[in-house]
Amino acid sequence: MDWVEGFTELCYGGDYNPEQWPEEVWHEDVALMREAGVNLVTLGVFAWSRLEPEPGRYDFGWLDRVLDLLHAGGIRVDLATPTASPPPWFSIVHPDALNIRHDLVRLTHGSRDTYCVSAPPYRQASVRIARALAERYRDHPALAMWHVHNEYGTWCHCDHVARSFRAWLQREYGTLAAVNDAWNTSFWSQHYSAWEQIMPPRATQYLPNPGQVLAFRRFLSDEMLAHFRAQRDVLRELTPGVPVTTNFVFGGWTPVNQWDWARETDLVAIDHYPAAGGAAAAEETAFAADLARSWAGGRPWLLMEQAPGMIHTPGRMISKRPGETIRHSLQHVARGSRGAMFFQWRASRGGAEQWHAGMVPHAGPDSRVFREIVELGRTLRTLGAHPGWADARVAAEVAIVWDPRAWWALESPGLPSADLDYLESVRQAHRVLYRHGVTVDFVPPSGDLSPYRAVLVPSLYLIADADARAMGDYVRGGGTLVVSYFSGVADEHGRARLGGHPGAFREVLGVRVEEFHPIGEPVELSTGDRGTAWSEHVRLTGAEAVATYRGPHPTGAELDGLPAVTVHRYGAGRALYLSTRLDDAGYARLLARAGLALSPADGLEVVRRTAPGEDWLFAVNHAERERELAAHGRDLLTGAAVEGGVSIPPGGHALLRLAGDQEPQTGV
Amino acid sequence: MDWVEGFTELCYGGDYNPEQWPEEVWHEDVALMREAGVNLVTLGVFAWSRLEPEPGRYDFGWLDRVLDLLHAGGIRVDLATPTASPPPWFSIVHPDALNIRHDLVRLTHGSRDTYCVSAPPYRQASVRIARALAERYRDHPALAMWHVHNEYGTWCHCDHVARSFRAWLQREYGTLAAVNDAWNTSFWSQHYSAWEQIMPPRATQYLPNPGQVLAFRRFLSDEMLAHFRAQRDVLRELTPGVPVTTNFVFGGWTPVNQWDWARETDLVAIDHYPAAGGAAAAEETAFAADLARSWAGGRPWLLMEQAPGMIHTPGRMISKRPGETIRHSLQHVARGSRGAMFFQWRASRGGAEQWHAGMVPHAGPDSRVFREIVELGRTLRTLGAHPGWADARVAAEVAIVWDPRAWWALESPGLPSADLDYLESVRQAHRVLYRHGVTVDFVPPSGDLSPYRAVLVPSLYLIADADARAMGDYVRGGGTLVVSYFSGVADEHGRARLGGHPGAFREVLGVRVEEFHPIGEPVELSTGDRGTAWSEHVRLTGAEAVATYRGPHPTGAELDGLPAVTVHRYGAGRALYLSTRLDDAGYARLLARAGLALSPADGLEVVRRTAPGEDWLFAVNHAERERELAAHGRDLLTGAAVEGGVSIPPGGHALLRLAGDQEPQTGV
Amino acid sequence: MDWVEGFTELCYGGDYNPEQWPEEVWHEDVALMREAGVNLVTLGVFAWSRLEPEPGRYDFGWLDRVLDLLHAGGIRVDLATPTASPPPWFSIVHPDALNIRHDLVRLTHGSRDTYCVSAPPYRQASVRIARALAERYRDHPALAMWHVHNEYGTWCHCDHVARSFRAWLQREYGTLAAVNDAWNTSFWSQHYSAWEQIMPPRATQYLPNPGQVLAFRRFLSDEMLAHFRAQRDVLRELTPGVPVTTNFVFGGWTPVNQWDWARETDLVAIDHYPAAGGAAAAEETAFAADLARSWAGGRPWLLMEQAPGMIHTPGRMISKRPGETIRHSLQHVARGSRGAMFFQWRASRGGAEQWHAGMVPHAGPDSRVFREIVELGRTLRTLGAHPGWADARVAAEVAIVWDPRAWWALESPGLPSADLDYLESVRQAHRVLYRHGVTVDFVPPSGDLSPYRAVLVPSLYLIADADARAMGDYVRGGGTLVVSYFSGVADEHGRARLGGHPGAFREVLGVRVEEFHPIGEPVELSTGDRGTAWSEHVRLTGAEAVATYRGPHPTGAELDGLPAVTVHRYGAGRALYLSTRLDDAGYARLLARAGLALSPADGLEVVRRTAPGEDWLFAVNHAERERELAAHGRDLLTGAAVEGGVSIPPGGHALLRLAGDQEPQTGV
Repeated sequence: MDWVEGFTELCYGGDYNPEQWPEEVWHEDVALMREAGVNLVTLGVFAWSRLEPEPGRYDFGWLDRVLDLLHAGGIRVDLATPTASPPPWFSIVHPDALNIRHDLVRLTHGSRDTYCVSAPPYRQASVRIARALAERYRDHPALAMWHVHNEYGTWCHCDHVARSFRAWLQREYGTLAAVNDAWNTSFWSQHYSAWEQIMPPRATQYLPNPGQVLAFRRFLSDEMLAHFRAQRDVLRELTPGVPVTTNFVFGGWTPVNQWDWARETDLVAIDHYPAAGGAAAAEETAFAADLARSWAGGRPWLLMEQAPGMIHTPGRMISKRPGETIRHSLQHVARGSRGAMFFQWRASRGGAEQWHAGMVPHAGPDSRVFREIVELGRTLRTLGAHPGWADARVAAEVAIVWDPRAWWALESPGLPSADLDYLESVRQAHRVLYRHGVTVDFVPPSGDLSPYRAVLVPSLYLIADADARAMGDYVRGGGTLVVSYFSGVADEHGRARLGGHPGAFREVLGVRVEEFHPIGEPVELSTGDRGTAWSEHVRLTGAEAVATYRGPHPTGAELDGLPAVTVHRYGAGRALYLSTRLDDAGYARLLARAGLALSPADGLEVVRRTAPGEDWLFAVNHAERERELAAHGRDLLTGAAVEGGVSIPPGGHALLRLAGDQEPQTGV
Repeated sequence: MDWVEGFTELCYGGDYNPEQWPEEVWHEDVALMREAGVNLVTLGVFAWSRLEPEPGRYDFGWLDRVLDLLHAGGIRVDLATPTASPPPWFSIVHPDALNIRHDLVRLTHGSRDTYCVSAPPYRQASVRIARALAERYRDHPALAMWHVHNEYGTWCHCDHVARSFRAWLQREYGTLAAVNDAWNTSFWSQHYSAWEQIMPPRATQYLPNPGQVLAFRRFLSDEMLAHFRAQRDVLRELTPGVPVTTNFVFGGWTPVNQWDWARETDLVAIDHYPAAGGAAAAEETAFAADLARSWAGGRPWLLMEQAPGMIHTPGRMISKRPGETIRHSLQHVARGSRGAMFFQWRASRGGAEQWHAGMVPHAGPDSRVFREIVELGRTLRTLGAHPGWADARVAAEVAIVWDPRAWWALESPGLPSADLDYLESVRQAHRVLYRHGVTVDFVPPSGDLSPYRAVLVPSLYLIADADARAMGDYVRGGGTLVVSYFSGVADEHGRARLGGHPGAFREVLGVRVEEFHPIGEPVELSTGDRGTAWSEHVRLTGAEAVATYRGPHPTGAELDGLPAVTVHRYGAGRALYLSTRLDDAGYARLLARAGLALSPADGLEVVRRTAPGEDWLFAVNHAERERELAAHGRDLLTGAAVEGGVSIPPGGHALLRLAGDQEPQTGV
Repeated sequence: MDWVEGFTELCYGGDYNPEQWPEEVWHEDVALMREAGVNLVTLGVFAWSRLEPEPGRYDFGWLDRVLDLLHAGGIRVDLATPTASPPPWFSIVHPDALNIRHDLVRLTHGSRDTYCVSAPPYRQASVRIARALAERYRDHPALAMWHVHNEYGTWCHCDHVARSFRAWLQREYGTLAAVNDAWNTSFWSQHYSAWEQIMPPRATQYLPNPGQVLAFRRFLSDEMLAHFRAQRDVLRELTPGVPVTTNFVFGGWTPVNQWDWARETDLVAIDHYPAAGGAAAAEETAFAADLARSWAGGRPWLLMEQAPGMIHTPGRMISKRPGETIRHSLQHVARGSRGAMFFQWRASRGGAEQWHAGMVPHAGPDSRVFREIVELGRTLRTLGAHPGWADARVAAEVAIVWDPRAWWALESPGLPSADLDYLESVRQAHRVLYRHGVTVDFVPPSGDLSPYRAVLVPSLYLIADADARAMGDYVRGGGTLVVSYFSGVADEHGRARLGGHPGAFREVLGVRVEEFHPIGEPVELSTGDRGTAWSEHVRLTGAEAVATYRGPHPTGAELDGLPAVTVHRYGAGRALYLSTRLDDAGYARLLARAGLALSPADGLEVVRRTAPGEDWLFAVNHAERERELAAHGRDLLTGAAVEGGVSIPPGGHALLRLAGDQEPQTGV
């Protein structure tokens, strides 16, 4: 089945920036791409200054030749609009299109992404160049998809932004009174009496208003999305059949609300650069892939960028182990990606990312990196040739709630503890399940929970009433909900809920929290676990205690004997509450208590793909020893029948089609 | 005796911000206030945007209703002028009234305190709103006192400030030549040839002029005081009988010189938020209370703000232990405060301090916090009912010199060591005495020392000649002076004194210091003590050595056998010098050597209140076990006669009227 | 021989700032200078505001009197142009001459060096005041040399700078195409289509272009040099016989390329403030002195500033040990300085550096510091009286390559590891040789290597083809080259060299590096050494392995058994490569392997001075015990014949004239 118009195989390739190289290198590029099995390249992401060297004068000649050359080589093109980096002349002509910082310093060109997404000249120029590209290449046979912009995530605080922010607020809140109410502007005399008084959060004397900051983060996501949509609409108009995507940046921050963005793209695409090496990188890779699949909501998605070698990281770049690039790529594919793409094809000689890895590194094709690239190309071709599994759903019985808005709100400077770490809370939930072989989906707070046996809610600071009610309904209907500390305490605007914490979840959890006690030192629990960072004064209002705080509390609070972990039978289901942070082992015991069957995966990652009447197992062995995967069926790569199990060598992988209905089993 | 017009009882209450709540909540508020025994609330601190929603249009209706409601409930009002947070419209109309940073970035509204105290529009608007409030409420029966502004401490570096700074310099120094001389502008070619050349210290290429920075800090204190005085004068004019106060902010910094400010307020008031929990919080509380009493100079003073629960602190908020709020409040009262006030009555739902504790927390009245608030109200009512003691003087035989100017100067970037820490030096002196049951006063360098047996001078970097001479006279007259390292080395402008350190104190101390040796590693002393951070090359010129440096010095300096601690008999008194930093135990031994009788208080805090012919002991037991207070007299809370001693339970307190003339004794 | 017109003796003195003191102090100054043996003072460095108190009005009267007074006292003058600190009035009249930061904040006067070196008004004013001084004092008999400005190193990013930068680029690169190529502006769409689009590197959204940043650093050095030359030319015109110098600042950064600057000065002069005390200070002193001598290229040079006591350092100033000032001064003299100068004569009472040491400290002449100053004066007079040695060459058989451009490039934010530390790499090479008694020269990458047995190339990130070829020729001709990791990987513009690392050195080293592996944890080597910070995947292409990586690699890379250290016989010489960082002991073993004879100096520093037919040994004993120096000849300070050896007491020194041709030997 074509998952993208005319595309049945898995995508393989990367960003290709031929404008950095003399034309004779292009021919070597295509030859090497063919050697590596590359079938798709992302072209022109940063080519604006070469495509439009001066205002209004286009130079498409070189790009024509590149497209023709690629097409002749059988390589298709994910053609980019180059709006992530306007040329130097642009910011000379339109100084008001340069973004300004929180402290009102206007930035200067000299890097990339130095623009204001709300500035009319930049908006107009973006659409103009997108239209020019579409008009030029609408009929080029190499054109496979559109890649709008790059890693949306640039902020500005200028007066253009102020105007757009106010318009957004009017749409979002309707009235000024509603804004004042949502932001509780009566505090510190911030009451607005006219829309024009509202500013983006700029440098101010002391703590900013958290409601304003949260709204601004939400606005920024929507504002960048509007910039995306303007280009997308032009591209759809001119090339109706060509899918339009953009690559989401993700790591230690999230500039956009991916749930909203995914609805507006034809293909969800992510860039993924793990922040660590080894086992942690594999965990992070699974995490990113599961998020991407969940954002795509069942539609295809694509890993658009990863590093083919050393990961470009401030401080000290991260070396990739032998085979790691292949295993990461397969993890993404196992979890739903329709291929594996890289940044970039050929490592740059100069420029800010001259030490970013390339599929063809500085050392050239005679290198470990390129040899792995060739091997990966072969592997993807083989996998792609097997029918069925790539269109099959990834099977998941557990979901984790993911909400960028809660993350943004939890970055507020005035919270009880800077140790509250949304990303780490979510990552812990995912990591513990990953390490025990449980594949999970992510869901938005408003998502459909009915497909899942259990739903985890890690540190979901804010939630709307309706969403909390739906979660209650889910439990009443038989679901299991596991809520972690400091969840539900605020409404969707970030206002504290009154009457006892965790406001929105009080009823479903059957507890009432009187008071929070952030901690530096750990506190003992009756289970032998240790709670860190946080603790709460919990009273039972229906739930029963699973674990209690024990002994003296580091702050002197009197929690000895009071509940730390609770379970509440609610309707046909159960709701658990965790009022402190546990380590991974403790968190795993909590999930076991919630009824999840956990057994250590020990480095053998297995993902089940399921379609009506058919199941596959996709396995990647991260361990340094051979691992046995228990299954019955057929090993699609060797073609051998599998009776009972198959051995996977260290660093290796397998794709099995299961006979009948089986649960995967791992063993030594 | 009325200590404030019409006020005999102890004050109890907090900041009340009804504008954040629907009117129906106000009725619940008053009911809960009555339940808690609240008799005073601070009203309207941040209400400007509700009182004057647009330029010149006042809306007093809601405030009228609040005042009437409070009055009907028997609650009096400390009515605030709302100038600490101008409304958004104000900074739109008067952008030049927004303050600018050291690096010339103009701030934007969106927090609080975003104004320039020197900007004419802000000055005028401040007086105008103060006058409007006074005219409206001058005759309201609930009006008990005026609370001008809030926690003065906002800086600006704009051209308005430059003009005011120059005018201040003209008043302070008279001539430009005197400024040039005081700042030693011949260094680095900074000689000013016209007043207009002088700027506030703004971002500059390298180290700033320390004389200029010190003068600017002093100017800022005076400039903010001028803003206060302008409002105070209007309020005094319209409501001659109503005392005018403002709440001093104090913690890790001091924006104002409290000695100057105290003279200009009818009632000294402080806000106090300890930076730690447990025993350290109790020490810090006593320190703040002793400072406030000393600033007030024998007049009443008031604890205006403290946290009723978790203390709002960056990083990780500090939990209060059970009973701690009560004990801290009683510490303040024992040391002279006429009550205990809080920020704030009801915890805010939103805004920058939404997680700041409230007397009514988010969880509502059914909470540990509110139950303690009710108990504290009962306790204060009982204590306030006993006559006499609250008007009696706090007895202190030891004084510590406190000078914000020395602190400011010791923050200069070009000093020999960043380890020189004025606040810690002063706090150590206070802490060691507090832990040994010695109550102290603070005095300014120009203060009357005659009431004290001993005066401690911790790291008083700068001092004027006359003040140093007066300290010499004090010793000659029989006093004991204990001077710590790096004191007296500069004159009042921060210029180094020549001829040997510690310039101003050379004669009284009988030593001459040739050279400083800041240290990272500790140095041994002959007493077994270890000196840290600092050491000096001391020569005796009349003094004798009490302790010497011993062994190799961490910097290679040859101090072995040279004096580290000295004592000098001078006239009828003695002057001790400490040339290095000791730990608390070593410092305590030094004080013992200086003739102070010290015995460990072990958590039982006892303050003696004394009036002609009458003495009281006010005791607070911070320990976790019952403590015995030896005394004869009457236990005013139980009414029982005390013969020999009284037991105070863990966390408890006592107020005894002594029979005859007794020294308090503590024991187990 | 006169090394400077009319100067045969060693210079002794310091910065003299009489404008800070009343005139009566000047007479005491001259008396104390004579007591100390001072024969040269640097006058007027920061006197602009006193010399030209208002625009165009000069006041030379006081300076006339100072010069006359010094001349009468037999003290000569190094007369400064005061341009390092324009008066306050200057920046009021010429606000565009104030420098602006990277983030476009314009600085304000109030420190020193607050100017833009490209601003025409500042350029013109600098020449004007230099001319006025030269016209006034051209015939004054005290005038010995000119001291232009002070410690050039101030940056600006304003539009004046932008214009100058573009003009520099035009001269340096010729065409815009060449700039685009050198900076690889095709990356991130930075292609410039007009010169006016090029800006100094200002605050921008993300990583800057490293080519642009490197060019800007090079431009700044040249631009400041142009400012220097403009003054120098005026001074040379008016006082043709008087040498013109400027004092180089050096420490944890280098603002200028000293190789270029040295060519333009009549006398190389440096300021030196070690960043540590004790043995590290002695090592750092030798390092600075060897650099200065190398920059001077055989011509005389002078230590222009050092601290006579506590070293002014942020955080905690560094105490000097007894005798340390003398030993440091003698180290400089032994390594070629024609004397020892200080900042400053008399410690300032006020101003930013009021706690900077003075030859006359705050405590006055009755102080350890001044007593040492007197002793040092006596010592320099004695040494200076012996003929010959001071004109003799410092003997060095080993050279280290020094290139500020490589340092600047290695500060780029996008490198694989922030642990790459150019200064530390060079300092380690020097330190290890210094500790083993080997005196070294520094050479630029284009320098003549023929005089040296061995040349060390520590972390020379970038190098031009021609220079790399010349190093190859040096090895082919019999030289020994020791290259450290991450050298030669970029061309002179900072563009990565392709085809395998270390590009420029591949052939001479006989290796090809495929990949870099920066590391946090150390890696084991077959020699028992541990490699830190960095490792490489090295393949032999002619070299043989001296040491290999062993065991598991911290990043999981498979380097076990691969080369870590290699040696390549190339022509008549040898080239060694070190692909990781070793500790000092390991680096010493590497140098021994390279054929250098190393034996521990154990604190006895010996420098050989050599002239045709004559040799001297200059020894300084930093050890705490007596040391024996094996030699035959004459001890010039005692006059005694030396037969076999001479004893040097702890902290002492000796100057021996050798009989015949001897190698110095050290022993216990």
